[in-house]
Amino acid sequence: MKPCVVLQSDFGVSTGLPASMTAVIAKIDPEIRIYDLCHEVREYDMRQAGRILLSTYPYWPDGTIFVSVVDPGVGTSRRSCAALLDNGSVIITPDNGTLSYVYDHITEVREIDETVNRLPGSDTHHTFHGRDVYAYTAGRLASGIITFAGVGPAYPVEEIVHFAMPVSQIVDGTAVGEVTGAHDHFGNVGISIPNEMIKEIGIGLGDYARVVIEKDGTVLYDKPMMFHRSFGWVAPGEPILNESSNDYVEISINQGSFCELELPELLGSYDLSAYKVKISPVGEE
Amino acid sequence: MKPCVVLQSDFGVSTGLPASMTAVIAKIDPEIRIYDLCHEVREYDMRQAGRILLSTYPYWPDGTIFVSVVDPGVGTSRRSCAALLDNGSVIITPDNGTLSYVYDHITEVREIDETVNRLPGSDTHHTFHGRDVYAYTAGRLASGIITFAGVGPAYPVEEIVHFAMPVSQIVDGTAVGEVTGAHDHFGNVGISIPNEMIKEIGIGLGDYARVVIEKDGTVLYDKPMMFHRSFGWVAPGEPILNESSNDYVEISINQGSFCELELPELLGSYDLSAYKVKISPVGEE
Amino acid sequence: MKPCVVLQSDFGVSTGLPASMTAVIAKIDPEIRIYDLCHEVREYDMRQAGRILLSTYPYWPDGTIFVSVVDPGVGTSRRSCAALLDNGSVIITPDNGTLSYVYDHITEVREIDETVNRLPGSDTHHTFHGRDVYAYTAGRLASGIITFAGVGPAYPVEEIVHFAMPVSQIVDGTAVGEVTGAHDHFGNVGISIPNEMIKEIGIGLGDYARVVIEKDGTVLYDKPMMFHRSFGWVAPGEPILNESSNDYVEISINQGSFCELELPELLGSYDLSAYKVKISPVGEE
Repeated sequence: MKPCVVLQSDFGVSTGLPASMTAVIAKIDPEIRIYDLCHEVREYDMRQAGRILLSTYPYWPDGTIFVSVVDPGVGTSRRSCAALLDNGSVIITPDNGTLSYVYDHITEVREIDETVNRLPGSDTHHTFHGRDVYAYTAGRLASGIITFAGVGPAYPVEEIVHFAMPVSQIVDGTAVGEVTGAHDHFGNVGISIPNEMIKEIGIGLGDYARVVIEKDGTVLYDKPMMFHRSFGWVAPGEPILNESSNDYVEISINQGSFCELELPELLGSYDLSAYKVKISPVGEE
Repeated sequence: MKPCVVLQSDFGVSTGLPASMTAVIAKIDPEIRIYDLCHEVREYDMRQAGRILLSTYPYWPDGTIFVSVVDPGVGTSRRSCAALLDNGSVIITPDNGTLSYVYDHITEVREIDETVNRLPGSDTHHTFHGRDVYAYTAGRLASGIITFAGVGPAYPVEEIVHFAMPVSQIVDGTAVGEVTGAHDHFGNVGISIPNEMIKEIGIGLGDYARVVIEKDGTVLYDKPMMFHRSFGWVAPGEPILNESSNDYVEISINQGSFCELELPELLGSYDLSAYKVKISPVGEE
Repeated sequence: MKPCVVLQSDFGVSTGLPASMTAVIAKIDPEIRIYDLCHEVREYDMRQAGRILLSTYPYWPDGTIFVSVVDPGVGTSRRSCAALLDNGSVIITPDNGTLSYVYDHITEVREIDETVNRLPGSDTHHTFHGRDVYAYTAGRLASGIITFAGVGPAYPVEEIVHFAMPVSQIVDGTAVGEVTGAHDHFGNVGISIPNEMIKEIGIGLGDYARVVIEKDGTVLYDKPMMFHRSFGWVAPGEPILNESSNDYVEISINQGSFCELELPELLGSYDLSAYKVKISPVGEE
């Protein structure tokens, strides 16, 4: 069976733009199964696009062809590429930082040769490479019309545009990391500290942790809260430090939005690495 | 042909969470057709999830496998289950009230045995049963890897968590019911009074009805409006009592939002049963 | 292979209404591939529905069956129809102006005969023709149960409800047109002036153009900006007149919303033809 194609963009569900990509692929080969990953990535937010790719790609079949189009540089000189991942899946995207989070899983990268892989008749269109180049290339790849080598010339993986990734460490018994995600839907705050590191500093399920969030040396938040497996372990409206399903901890409010209620400025930021998080045990009182 | 799987959640279209469920199913069996029901159910609103299931399930093929994940109790002790409906369709969901509206159509219910029906390697994840348990179980069921009995042990249908359902009656020539739905999209207000009951109290198509909405004995709204088949029978901006396509009446404003303009508090409520509605005939004047 | 069905509406992604249409088609014939075009068309905005159809239909396979339901007149006397396009594709829609933009591509139109093409048992439902009539007809057509002639009786194409279309012309070296679209997602403003007309009046890529927007003789906006192939050629936050991927120019702000920042009133208007646009060359200074 042919691989499926999975589409992501910041085009929004209120436009016909995501469907235009679907259309191009369905026209190339009606047998290809086409799924949507997310088309409400925040406009121009390559980091969010990258985080979604990292957290979801292993759940799709090996060999899946992803298209991810968050592309503020469309029509300018940024590269268009296809990156081969360690499980045989491929991500077709502008090479603009979107690949940062999956960077360590990339085994090969090729620049799309637009003299071959561009929708015929689209040469005068310079604002919709998602449709004219990326979806077109994905469709041809999934259909078997081209191989991965047929995408275009390979270039060194090291040349891929990639942002510095969030880090974490234990300093004097305190887990120190940074904010990695803040989302306006459920309002949880993702943290670069693994679930396991919380246990290493002596905080067990049901124990209380002190959670401090700082920016530029200024403390923005400093409260104790329970640490547990999921947000449902505290009463509605209460904050909690909980394990997330991507193996890192997150700060939530049960049935509420931590971001909106406590730190709305997080929702407006593209680069969250300036927000440092410190987590330490709280003694019995 | 294998049954299709239909996914619903409150995860929102701006996250990669709905697609993570799709991914798991596509990886189990690429032949399964996967559709989305709605992923913008209001956060934590089991009632809305239940109303959408009730109003849509008969339109899907008999035997369809639904997954509905509005799950504020994820990671806690609430049951995960699969309910068999009278048309052979199945709903896989947390047993938290989501099944209230379809309760009368359930013939059998089984608790998901997570020792068998859980995505391998997901044991440390406690916040995303939609992906790790529900979608995984749905995929295996649709693919034929397990039968309905293979979901897990049966338990009495009576034990299913189910809310009291809206009621209606005729009292002294007035149809009395309650608000069943208020939605921020078109802004119509669903009422627990059947289309037929309006006619029983002597109000015909084109006649005027007096519509009263009360809460805790306080009248919040009291106006006459036309009763007709659809909202287009009055001028734009005018309110109307119209038959809905689920056989109950609703209050609309033609090309406007009744909720926003008249009773915005409805949009903030999860349990609307406190809003009583009284409809009576208006004499010729 | 059977043609695919592509669904559009103003039902919103937060309701179960789009999926109800999918359900009806999947129940008629599980082999039909069903895709979504856009379900967040602005409520009651037939023009936006029409623009999306025009800009996307050529990218889908020839013979695709589209369903487009923006239907403020549902349940009243407006016609329901199926229009055959020059590439063999079909649009099933209320005949209420939605077909204006593709009007020149229509070769034949038929009124849906609801005595045949209506979901059995739905006779008492008058507010959801998208499900009960349009999706049902689309499914039967795609499945081959009916032919195009089986939709119902033909009527003259000239009788199709169609709005006046935007125009453009060169007057004394100035390109004169009107606003054709304003969208709250990226916030670009579509203009009825073709890319080529800008070059005809002597403005080349990288040159500056004077852009004037007027309504009722009052100037609302008057600024010079660069003309180029895409919005990425100016710094973030700067306005630009750029070629769009539908062959007409648009006004953008790089990584910002022109509509929100400069002319928010555009976002509230259904008929944008009152907004006139004049574009002229700016001399070297």
